[in-house]
Amino acid sequence: MRIVITGGAGFLGRRLARAILARGQLTDASGARRQVREVLLVDVVPAENVNDPRVRTLAGDIADPALVAASVSNDTDSVFHLAAVVSGEAEANFDLGWRVNFDATRHLLERCRTLARPPKVVFTSSVAVFGGALPDVVPDTQALTPQSSYGAQKAVGELLVHDYTRKGFLDGRSLRLPTVSVRPGKPNKAASSFASGILREPLAGIDAVCPVPADTRMWLLSPRRVIESLLIGHEAPASALVHGRSINVPGISVTVGGMLDALRRVAGDAVAAKVRFASDPAIERIVRTWPRDFDPAYGRSLGMQADPDFDAIVRQYIDDELRT
Amino acid sequence: MRIVITGGAGFLGRRLARAILARGQLTDASGARRQVREVLLVDVVPAENVNDPRVRTLAGDIADPALVAASVSNDTDSVFHLAAVVSGEAEANFDLGWRVNFDATRHLLERCRTLARPPKVVFTSSVAVFGGALPDVVPDTQALTPQSSYGAQKAVGELLVHDYTRKGFLDGRSLRLPTVSVRPGKPNKAASSFASGILREPLAGIDAVCPVPADTRMWLLSPRRVIESLLIGHEAPASALVHGRSINVPGISVTVGGMLDALRRVAGDAVAAKVRFASDPAIERIVRTWPRDFDPAYGRSLGMQADPDFDAIVRQYIDDELRT
Repeated sequence: MRIVITGGAGFLGRRLARAILARGQLTDASGARRQVREVLLVDVVPAENVNDPRVRTLAGDIADPALVAASVSNDTDSVFHLAAVVSGEAEANFDLGWRVNFDATRHLLERCRTLARPPKVVFTSSVAVFGGALPDVVPDTQALTPQSSYGAQKAVGELLVHDYTRKGFLDGRSLRLPTVSVRPGKPNKAASSFASGILREPLAGIDAVCPVPADTRMWLLSPRRVIESLLIGHEAPASALVHGRSINVPGISVTVGGMLDALRRVAGDAVAAKVRFASDPAIERIVRTWPRDFDPAYGRSLGMQADPDFDAIVRQYIDDELRT
Repeated sequence: MRIVITGGAGFLGRRLARAILARGQLTDASGARRQVREVLLVDVVPAENVNDPRVRTLAGDIADPALVAASVSNDTDSVFHLAAVVSGEAEANFDLGWRVNFDATRHLLERCRTLARPPKVVFTSSVAVFGGALPDVVPDTQALTPQSSYGAQKAVGELLVHDYTRKGFLDGRSLRLPTVSVRPGKPNKAASSFASGILREPLAGIDAVCPVPADTRMWLLSPRRVIESLLIGHEAPASALVHGRSINVPGISVTVGGMLDALRRVAGDAVAAKVRFASDPAIERIVRTWPRDFDPAYGRSLGMQADPDFDAIVRQYIDDELRT
């Protein structure tokens, strides 16, 4: 197996690479289990901290067809397409969002179409494809009603993946990821950045601001479970994908207040007290449109699993990021 | 009002132009009713048979940004975007379909975005955005699940119209048209072409072949009602579009057998006997995925109306096309 990960220098990309390398084998589009020979990490900057002789890195603009051509070739078996401009940035910069989140995806699928053997493509979509007047619990049959450019771009990407798959040009799977929490590192321009920041910063002894009210309910998943879901989405045989190629990934539905309660239980009052609330209307406007809860029956039927509760997510972050 | 109609040389484009010219006034994006000063018909060939001093024609490739730039300018108030590669052709020629049905739409919206005053844009989508396992009666909240490239391209177009509207770049309305019957003229490469041919050819004394079984149920609308719906979609104030910018246009649900019964009642046994059944698997495969019936509550709430029955549709065709 030769595997390409776009957005491969990012936190999820590097984690995914490590998980693939640890497994050592994956299933190709023909259904054969094969050794992982190469993982190519493509991103705007070279990926760091993935030290393995099977890893190669390539830096450049994913929206440049030349980079896509250099990344994906006839011996590519699978592509995990994680590269994206995040929600807040796509809303602020319309052209950049459509260029990176849509044009790059299209170039990538077009490139895959030219290969001698149609590769597997795992596309990371988002719950932001849903929005507006939603049922309290979103079913798998919910219509796509994005209320942000990011959501619209992911929805369009799903439709492309679907049509290229239907035509036999590739074997695509679009995974609608919950908001990932707790992300390590620094805040980013995602409207959901706070959903990690209000845990990560207090745990590092830093004050944090929560830009949305405590009763804001979100659909969340830990980094470990995201990686597991991406691999389940990749490994699922085409015959199991009976409800189409877009899959709501299981998560847990928690309020911001519930997240802070978990932080208090796991790390103590002093840590949780480092969070204060200060409304940010721009972030609130985007987050308010996102779905709060799902019945992700299809994803569960494929074996995807959410974390048991948010306490477990906080403990996982401490184990993975603060004890290394 | 200066109005652009893409696909303006086609049968619906010319009918729409005549209807707009007959009204003499339309409502612009600011809500003002204004005189129609110009209707520009853009198509691959110059539009014929629309003789009015207010009509101008422009011929070229709608997927060429230069043609789009020449068509839409700062004094454009409204665009009716009808130009498309039909379903059968889009399925047979993947690149052509995406180029005309998607890239051209995007160029057009981008051009509209540059105008000093955001124009109204009426985009003709299709029931082909739905497919696969559908409820017997499709509700307005149904998820987009296209099963053809044409349907995927229309679905993506809707998402673009939605996002450009949300950002205030234009005032868009996507109308999901039922299959239009009875179309005059010659058969085309639409998978639905037979839904007109099995009426039109017998009425002209010509034998016709129906490529799908008699119990095939379709969602249909007459040309007159399509034009009325397009104008209602254009005229609706933005404040009335409370359920988003994609609207299922009301139609009637009729089997192919029911269509032929209507033909027999209106035109006699000898005419109806000119239709024979001969399965065409390629057409059947596409048509079978289309929705058969809708509850188009949103469209009806805006004032859109279906024909009373298929007999009326047959009589309308005879009145409009065979008595001129």
